[in-house]
Amino acid sequence: MDIEKANDTAIERMMESRPMLIGMGVARDVIPGMSDDLLMHAGPPITWARASGPMRGAITGALIYEGKAKDMAEAQALVESGKIKLEPCHHHHAVGPMAGVTSPSMWVYIVENKTHGNRTFSNVNEGYGKVLRYGAYSEDVQERLHWLNDTMAPVLAKAIELSGGLDMRALIAEALHMGDEGHNRNKAGSFMYTAKLAPYVAQAAPNSELAAQIIKSLGDNALSVLNPVMAACKAMAETAHDIEGSTIVSVMARNGTDFGMRVSGLGDRWFTAPVATPQGLYFPGFSEADASGDIGDSTITETAGIGGFAMATAPAIVTFVSGKPKDAINATLEMYEITHGEHKYFTVPPLDFRGTPTGIDIRKVVETGITPRVNTGIAHKDAGVGQIGAGLVRPPFEMFQEAFMAYAEKYGFA
Amino acid sequence: MDIEKANDTAIERMMESRPMLIGMGVARDVIPGMSDDLLMHAGPPITWARASGPMRGAITGALIYEGKAKDMAEAQALVESGKIKLEPCHHHHAVGPMAGVTSPSMWVYIVENKTHGNRTFSNVNEGYGKVLRYGAYSEDVQERLHWLNDTMAPVLAKAIELSGGLDMRALIAEALHMGDEGHNRNKAGSFMYTAKLAPYVAQAAPNSELAAQIIKSLGDNALSVLNPVMAACKAMAETAHDIEGSTIVSVMARNGTDFGMRVSGLGDRWFTAPVATPQGLYFPGFSEADASGDIGDSTITETAGIGGFAMATAPAIVTFVSGKPKDAINATLEMYEITHGEHKYFTVPPLDFRGTPTGIDIRKVVETGITPRVNTGIAHKDAGVGQIGAGLVRPPFEMFQEAFMAYAEKYGFA
Repeated sequence: MDIEKANDTAIERMMESRPMLIGMGVARDVIPGMSDDLLMHAGPPITWARASGPMRGAITGALIYEGKAKDMAEAQALVESGKIKLEPCHHHHAVGPMAGVTSPSMWVYIVENKTHGNRTFSNVNEGYGKVLRYGAYSEDVQERLHWLNDTMAPVLAKAIELSGGLDMRALIAEALHMGDEGHNRNKAGSFMYTAKLAPYVAQAAPNSELAAQIIKSLGDNALSVLNPVMAACKAMAETAHDIEGSTIVSVMARNGTDFGMRVSGLGDRWFTAPVATPQGLYFPGFSEADASGDIGDSTITETAGIGGFAMATAPAIVTFVSGKPKDAINATLEMYEITHGEHKYFTVPPLDFRGTPTGIDIRKVVETGITPRVNTGIAHKDAGVGQIGAGLVRPPFEMFQEAFMAYAEKYGFA
Repeated sequence: MDIEKANDTAIERMMESRPMLIGMGVARDVIPGMSDDLLMHAGPPITWARASGPMRGAITGALIYEGKAKDMAEAQALVESGKIKLEPCHHHHAVGPMAGVTSPSMWVYIVENKTHGNRTFSNVNEGYGKVLRYGAYSEDVQERLHWLNDTMAPVLAKAIELSGGLDMRALIAEALHMGDEGHNRNKAGSFMYTAKLAPYVAQAAPNSELAAQIIKSLGDNALSVLNPVMAACKAMAETAHDIEGSTIVSVMARNGTDFGMRVSGLGDRWFTAPVATPQGLYFPGFSEADASGDIGDSTITETAGIGGFAMATAPAIVTFVSGKPKDAINATLEMYEITHGEHKYFTVPPLDFRGTPTGIDIRKVVETGITPRVNTGIAHKDAGVGQIGAGLVRPPFEMFQEAFMAYAEKYGFA
């Protein structure tokens, strides 16, 4: 078994992927395996009994959105009876930030990997504050969801088609030269995304008033591009999966209770361990005691070589996640210790345009004891509240140990 | 004479300025002193005889645009006969990049300083390549100018009004955290500018097709925000002028032949010296032998504490002007040696959010021998060609010596 060669193949496939945002569609129509009795969620598989507060809140909100439940008790009953099934987004080529709950009627972005042909999906970003993905599900959250899905998404879908598609690898590469790291900081990328789509929104909208509203909604949300970026990272990362003998991580995701990971050469098995609580900056009135455990599929960004791994491109992020600009440089430097290569297309100007650390090698994590650095939002631990901060977190080390032992078992050595 | 206190006042006025982009208008209607027999140009005063190739080309192009000349010979005759007068933009609270030639029928941005009430102006950015401001004046240049002025500008003017105005100090501050330095690199700022105005362009345009064209034109031009940024810098810098005893530079500008400078405490006198030729990267097929001397009012950015002075915010700029990212840091560090203060609102993330070096002190330039660092585009030396590169340049040292002596003469000491 030539592990180095297998890993070369894995990250080469990942880096040479060219994910294009080609359109949007309703989840039940476009996502393979999506059905009317299914909710997709972030992270590895979870049950209602073990689900965190924000996950329960988002499940409740999605079932209210679908007209299937009126409150959390009804939502719980539907899920516990098995009338509504829960499955990870990652089982459907999809990703969702924070709780990541995506229901059949919701619109999703469609990303197509022009190099390898695979298609991936992500829901629409709701902006900051009291939003479904952070576990809020009140009436205003529902109203906003309906506007985003029923009013905005059909126009945006048409606009994306009129644009001929957006090259997401190019957009990410450029945003990394504009102070974004692509996970917590997507300011420049979101402005770019808005500026690039706005001409087509103007053409696609039924009237100029709605065009203006949609463009403003995209431009005012510094995370509007996050979901397409995540779908693009998923499109890249999943091409690194299922390479015989490879020790590269192809999925990292959290459901608020467990951190889950898949490894290229180890099939579809989830390696899991309890999540940690992020360290960071809290909004006024909140502290770490209020925080949910780590949650969301957005760690697909770090899996693909950006986010916490590209911190050095985003010195201004420290105003948002705490620390000094020098820490941002050090975060990226540290990640070279546990990755297989340097990205060909995602480069870091302050490090003389060195490629971002790409392709987490479970062997290197186990050898060095260094776990990946992840940037993240912080949800309140209770359902219904929302975002209370942003910060940094690391996946549990034991998950990598377990994967390492599984590798040894399967391949006889590691 | 308390020079330090005078300089404190000068830079405090500059930094506390809050320039808002409030609208656009036709130059002859909105610029004080503009008249039908006048062309404004970049830099200190110039005659046809001493004008550089790109300046002659731009003058010719503007007179063709106004329907007053058919070719360069006619343009020359009009200017040499005095039928058409040439005056610096800076004599009219205006600034223009490169040749900066602005004619009475052209539309200009209007910036109002909400702190001090002064109004400043700049023309519309034409994009890259063969454009009037680099001295090109062929038919396609004319067509583009007509579209920008006759078709785009009236809609953009309405859009700016509908938006309620754009806070340019806030926009610049944010762009500096997105890898722009605000002079040569305005990528993030231009995306931000496009995203912020696009909703109102959609509303202001007579039809969605034109809305789409205008938004695309702004979004595709990585310099679309340069001219409003320059007008904003002029609005800030001119409030530092005419402070009794101040040694702060309030204007730096080049006409392709002479570099010119004004000093706060020394009235309206221009201190001038021959321009240098920029060092930098040339487009394929061109070299320094083809380059015009340094040209343009865009040095107003360095005068206000951004551009070359904020290089450290823009490590990726070195791909455009040559050098290593470390050079960008060093450029900013060097400028602290010759400036009076650090900007309160323009900060540099990689330097732990230190304020940009602000307020060039002629005493410090003369004492240290360090001249300001300026980022710039490079024009071909012949009229009619256009841009051939981008790079770095410094103003002539003797200009600062001359100003220093004038100061000593006026105030008896320095």
